[in-house]
Amino acid sequence: MTRTKQLDLLFEEMIEIRRYLHMNPELSHQEIATPAFIADRLEEMGVEVRRDVGGRGVVGTIRGGKPGKTIAFRADFDALPIDDQKEVVYKSTVPGVMHACGHDGHTAALLGFAKAMVAMQDDLPGTIVLIHQFGEEVSPGGAQAMIADGCLNGVDEVYGAHLQSTMDIGSVYLRDGFLQASEDVVKIVVHGSGTHGAEPHHGVDPILAASHIMVALQSIVSRNANPLKELVVTIGKFHAGDADNVISSKAVLEGTIRVFDPEIRKLASQRLRTIVENVAIALGATAEVSIEAGYDSLWNHPAETNIVRAAAASVLGADHVVEIDPVMPVEDFTYYTQAKPGAYFFVGAKMENDSLVYPHHHENFDFNEHAMLITAKVFAEIYFKAQESAVDSISGDLDSI
Amino acid sequence: MTRTKQLDLLFEEMIEIRRYLHMNPELSHQEIATPAFIADRLEEMGVEVRRDVGGRGVVGTIRGGKPGKTIAFRADFDALPIDDQKEVVYKSTVPGVMHACGHDGHTAALLGFAKAMVAMQDDLPGTIVLIHQFGEEVSPGGAQAMIADGCLNGVDEVYGAHLQSTMDIGSVYLRDGFLQASEDVVKIVVHGSGTHGAEPHHGVDPILAASHIMVALQSIVSRNANPLKELVVTIGKFHAGDADNVISSKAVLEGTIRVFDPEIRKLASQRLRTIVENVAIALGATAEVSIEAGYDSLWNHPAETNIVRAAAASVLGADHVVEIDPVMPVEDFTYYTQAKPGAYFFVGAKMENDSLVYPHHHENFDFNEHAMLITAKVFAEIYFKAQESAVDSISGDLDSI
Amino acid sequence: MTRTKQLDLLFEEMIEIRRYLHMNPELSHQEIATPAFIADRLEEMGVEVRRDVGGRGVVGTIRGGKPGKTIAFRADFDALPIDDQKEVVYKSTVPGVMHACGHDGHTAALLGFAKAMVAMQDDLPGTIVLIHQFGEEVSPGGAQAMIADGCLNGVDEVYGAHLQSTMDIGSVYLRDGFLQASEDVVKIVVHGSGTHGAEPHHGVDPILAASHIMVALQSIVSRNANPLKELVVTIGKFHAGDADNVISSKAVLEGTIRVFDPEIRKLASQRLRTIVENVAIALGATAEVSIEAGYDSLWNHPAETNIVRAAAASVLGADHVVEIDPVMPVEDFTYYTQAKPGAYFFVGAKMENDSLVYPHHHENFDFNEHAMLITAKVFAEIYFKAQESAVDSISGDLDSI
Amino acid sequence: MTRTKQLDLLFEEMIEIRRYLHMNPELSHQEIATPAFIADRLEEMGVEVRRDVGGRGVVGTIRGGKPGKTIAFRADFDALPIDDQKEVVYKSTVPGVMHACGHDGHTAALLGFAKAMVAMQDDLPGTIVLIHQFGEEVSPGGAQAMIADGCLNGVDEVYGAHLQSTMDIGSVYLRDGFLQASEDVVKIVVHGSGTHGAEPHHGVDPILAASHIMVALQSIVSRNANPLKELVVTIGKFHAGDADNVISSKAVLEGTIRVFDPEIRKLASQRLRTIVENVAIALGATAEVSIEAGYDSLWNHPAETNIVRAAAASVLGADHVVEIDPVMPVEDFTYYTQAKPGAYFFVGAKMENDSLVYPHHHENFDFNEHAMLITAKVFAEIYFKAQESAVDSISGDLDSI
Repeated sequence: MTRTKQLDLLFEEMIEIRRYLHMNPELSHQEIATPAFIADRLEEMGVEVRRDVGGRGVVGTIRGGKPGKTIAFRADFDALPIDDQKEVVYKSTVPGVMHACGHDGHTAALLGFAKAMVAMQDDLPGTIVLIHQFGEEVSPGGAQAMIADGCLNGVDEVYGAHLQSTMDIGSVYLRDGFLQASEDVVKIVVHGSGTHGAEPHHGVDPILAASHIMVALQSIVSRNANPLKELVVTIGKFHAGDADNVISSKAVLEGTIRVFDPEIRKLASQRLRTIVENVAIALGATAEVSIEAGYDSLWNHPAETNIVRAAAASVLGADHVVEIDPVMPVEDFTYYTQAKPGAYFFVGAKMENDSLVYPHHHENFDFNEHAMLITAKVFAEIYFKAQESAVDSISGDLDSI
Repeated sequence: MTRTKQLDLLFEEMIEIRRYLHMNPELSHQEIATPAFIADRLEEMGVEVRRDVGGRGVVGTIRGGKPGKTIAFRADFDALPIDDQKEVVYKSTVPGVMHACGHDGHTAALLGFAKAMVAMQDDLPGTIVLIHQFGEEVSPGGAQAMIADGCLNGVDEVYGAHLQSTMDIGSVYLRDGFLQASEDVVKIVVHGSGTHGAEPHHGVDPILAASHIMVALQSIVSRNANPLKELVVTIGKFHAGDADNVISSKAVLEGTIRVFDPEIRKLASQRLRTIVENVAIALGATAEVSIEAGYDSLWNHPAETNIVRAAAASVLGADHVVEIDPVMPVEDFTYYTQAKPGAYFFVGAKMENDSLVYPHHHENFDFNEHAMLITAKVFAEIYFKAQESAVDSISGDLDSI
Repeated sequence: MTRTKQLDLLFEEMIEIRRYLHMNPELSHQEIATPAFIADRLEEMGVEVRRDVGGRGVVGTIRGGKPGKTIAFRADFDALPIDDQKEVVYKSTVPGVMHACGHDGHTAALLGFAKAMVAMQDDLPGTIVLIHQFGEEVSPGGAQAMIADGCLNGVDEVYGAHLQSTMDIGSVYLRDGFLQASEDVVKIVVHGSGTHGAEPHHGVDPILAASHIMVALQSIVSRNANPLKELVVTIGKFHAGDADNVISSKAVLEGTIRVFDPEIRKLASQRLRTIVENVAIALGATAEVSIEAGYDSLWNHPAETNIVRAAAASVLGADHVVEIDPVMPVEDFTYYTQAKPGAYFFVGAKMENDSLVYPHHHENFDFNEHAMLITAKVFAEIYFKAQESAVDSISGDLDSI
Repeated sequence: MTRTKQLDLLFEEMIEIRRYLHMNPELSHQEIATPAFIADRLEEMGVEVRRDVGGRGVVGTIRGGKPGKTIAFRADFDALPIDDQKEVVYKSTVPGVMHACGHDGHTAALLGFAKAMVAMQDDLPGTIVLIHQFGEEVSPGGAQAMIADGCLNGVDEVYGAHLQSTMDIGSVYLRDGFLQASEDVVKIVVHGSGTHGAEPHHGVDPILAASHIMVALQSIVSRNANPLKELVVTIGKFHAGDADNVISSKAVLEGTIRVFDPEIRKLASQRLRTIVENVAIALGATAEVSIEAGYDSLWNHPAETNIVRAAAASVLGADHVVEIDPVMPVEDFTYYTQAKPGAYFFVGAKMENDSLVYPHHHENFDFNEHAMLITAKVFAEIYFKAQESAVDSISGDLDSI
């Protein structure tokens, strides 16, 4: 795959960038140095930069010398409130803050890709938009703000990728349609009426009402949702009462709804409210329900996903393009593919030494840095294939990348 | 106990009456020959008789030669739709109909008592009212109709007794206050929406809704009722669906509420409605509840219960007057003690041969006929003690009974 | 699509066959005249026939004059215990028995296809196996018996189709992988201990135990199954008790488990047993669970499904090949694709007059007979494409069909 | 009621003692100054004293000059960890510690009674045992330890009383048989298996299992216990999970079982264990149950309760002896009546000013001090009536009390 070989030369630089960011992480919606660093690097390369997009975002634009489509690539750059426990030279220098999800790698890969593309800017068909996004980890994230601030204006297609420390290095993982779930955060307060535990008839037992609610909530998945559609309703917290012999005045439940199909999402919320409110009344209690919408489910457009398939096959071989089931974690890349055709995919980033493999958001999380190079190469191939899909003839000089 | 000894002479006649009635039983609200037989026997004795009281009842009046209170005694005379399986000479001659609850014995005892009292009518203080009641086994029974038709007019106190085939012969069993429960008959129809069993999302599963209702109904007893008050809520029938793989359109539940305290009875009905209707809504279904009031709970007035205690102690000895817990079966004698001071009690009637002991309403039911004699004697003692409680001096000639 | 045009000439004959069968339906596992009729017709055409395969099945073999793969096609021929209520000249003549699922059409289409292929037998590459199957409607069906009796011996690929009265005429509907669910029939008997409804403490309430079971069964789908895997657990029947005021001795529940993935199927059965048995014990009852395995889920091999796609696109145009979600009804074609590569698909057969559209198994069921012609044509195209997939060069004379 | 009139003269002294104790409260099992104060006062009166009985208890003995029964009276003297918020001159001087249950009053009444009896010691029949008990508020309390240390040796009957701030002053409240409930403290830990809230199939949801347990526990009261027997099973605490989107590994429930009848108590514990353990298994979880026995239920012996009735009627008039339902709070006086015939009763102590009426254990609790005088007088009457019940002739000089 000759046209991405130039990226190999930039791998060291990507590592350097990634490790610098890893040592200097910033929390979601508190990023100051990181976007400045990114913008500065892009400007050094000669990329046209817009800062403070949607708040803390950075958008770079590389206008090719030839006509073509405008293709956007997104990398997020925020870190997590986790204390880095790894013993590596590039360990976080900020106590309690850590790049434990690989966004440092995303950023380095996108910067590496940018540098390679700038090197061949005059011969490039179309335009590259580099979306460096803040605040992905905390809903509402940066995506919607950056889109509102125009980062997708004029864009024809948009792509993004996520490193996965638990997936094999050397492969890309993806699917058409729904890739990641939507999330709603549910809070239920069941109000009973407190009384002595030996005199239940003088009060209303909120634990019993809440337990009936918990049990009845199972019917949303088991009876109300189409069995062909994925849905999870989980109550993760149930807190009520302080003493064994006192009937307390309330019970508090908190949970999450995960789903791909927006109709099922709506149905689940409606059924949850109906169950909670009416079971509470049935048991003599009352209940308040609040459902706070988190990210929507992420939907990959089939045509653009096919471009990713082809691009990844070019870089890694067809055997290393793996079709996967959708996953339940959430991602605000969804708002890009709601606005424009596009696709999101996972890049395997498993460490070769199994003892170093930790899940994302773990205090020992790390990833195989070759995944950055793969990401950048697949981005490059996507770019060329996206242009090809519009223009039948590909200029041979693209092979010089 | 000399003043009841004359009744011993009437025992054979009581047996004869009882066995005649046993061979010729009539169902509740269909009694024709039985009240005619009773009225004829009373008239033969010289008792003043009113027929067709409240429909099919018979009321006899024995006016004593001396002043005193008017005391009523009640015996019911209806039989049950049960096929007599006993092998005795006095076996029922009517297929499918049987005196399986001892009302034949009640009638014979009251007639025996009447005959003894008539024999000493001139010397008697006060007035005896003999209430022969129809239709006790089927709600609404004859008690309310006979009361409405005046059977308690002018009555100062009212007493009744029930033979008990499972309680020891030679003892009387009673308590102050609530003796027998009230009954409400509950019918619940849960309307779901039928669909293929493999496509639950196209319908509403009434079995699931009804199961949640069944489970939640337990909270009425466990949480809503005062733990010091007796309450039973039972669903005895649950019928829904015809095929394993079809979600049916409805579920039908039938049950009973048994309780002594009228406030708890009201609470139980209210809570049941609230639970059924709101749990149904919670599960996406709807429900109809009908609660048909059966007999009220039976309450024994303490003063009159004390008269029974004393009377039974005179007849049987104090050791054979047993204080018992209330029982859950129902009895329309309750309407007499709602209208007038009075008391109801149980007369042990266990067969001496254990192999002949069967519960009431059993196809092999029979009772120890000596219980009739005891009943008549206790009635007589009650009568005299009730008069004594008004007049301090008792005429010695009462001892001649 | 020239090579299937000859089938148009056979359409009238297919209609005649189908209507004859429709007037003379035979129940599953009672087929006598139907297989004889089929075998006779095949022999008349000159097809090599084996009768009584696996019991009542018929297998025809058409050996082409040229080398090639052996491809089997299956049509089922049993009818249902439903009384035909249609007013048509070809109405069933057998009271209470009716071809209410379209198997008459399957048979006619396969016979028409056979006749067309025989006509060009010398020029045909490979061998055609015609599987006329008995007893599909009642588990265990005829498929396993016929396979055990060798109907797939030497077969390289196997195909089948089902008419669908509710899907648009002119289209074929299919998917890779799981197309139809597996079925398990569940019977649960909860043994309590009967007693008077007013004395629950003397017994064990089987309705309460069964209701808790019903509610807890929801957790299999909501918590135990992978949310990405389809599963339905339905209890369609719940029968317990005869009287409102009697606690009965048992409750009987019947249900169905529908699932595609065999691992989830196993999990569901295990969880169901665990829930039923232990909830019963928790409530003081005991429970017996029987789970009778019905048909396995039907899995379409992707390569062969692609052949169907291409074949249907040839016959109907690519726009009329519709990708669908899997469906929950069951089908014993599954055993053919368990044994050999193959695929099953649906052929739209909706009547043009909407008032004549009824679901399968309805007493007014009928279908658009053009679907038979489409089925036969798609079978022919499948056959040729299957041969092509092995041999690159196709003989031009196939176009003469 | 002349023989208790001398106590009127001691009322001021009782007030003084009570207020001194009220200002100097000591927590259960930490009492040092209080028992010393009591012992000193008794010795000052000339009462024979044993200190440190069963740990911190004090037992005084007054041997009368005449033969008779030995009758014990008990008063508890521990305080509660509550901060006194009353504005009175005798407010607690110990921050966070308060006589909020009236034990100071019990002690003062018993000391007053003792002083009156000592004054007439030579003429007294029988022997008085004064049991000043420590640690009643915290199980295990002082009763069992003092009994083990011999405080009831030689005692024929034992009596005790509790002031009740919410019951009318001037009346005594009591009943035969069970007066106060037993208590068991229940702790349940349900062990599931933690996992991501979006992937329930990878874990076991302990909140769902615990909710099913909570719901099923209702059946103990509603179905298993005799409806004529009182029982409460309350779960007052339900704590599980820390995050809305994480399935936690365990749920912790704490509760209380209150009951009078020891058989029902045993049944409730057995059923609770069976439900918890088996519902947990049904839902794929496991559960541990610990049930720590608190105080037994308090049973009043009928003969001794009759003595209290008669004594209270002598002091207050028959209209002021009120028969009550049993109450659910617990009391370790139970262990005295388990060891010896005896009775416990409540003495109305409501403040005349309604705005000063607070329940026991409230930070504003206070009581009407006349209740102490009533208590002492009823004790005296009990003593004489208990002696009378043995000896027919009562010496006239008792009237001088």
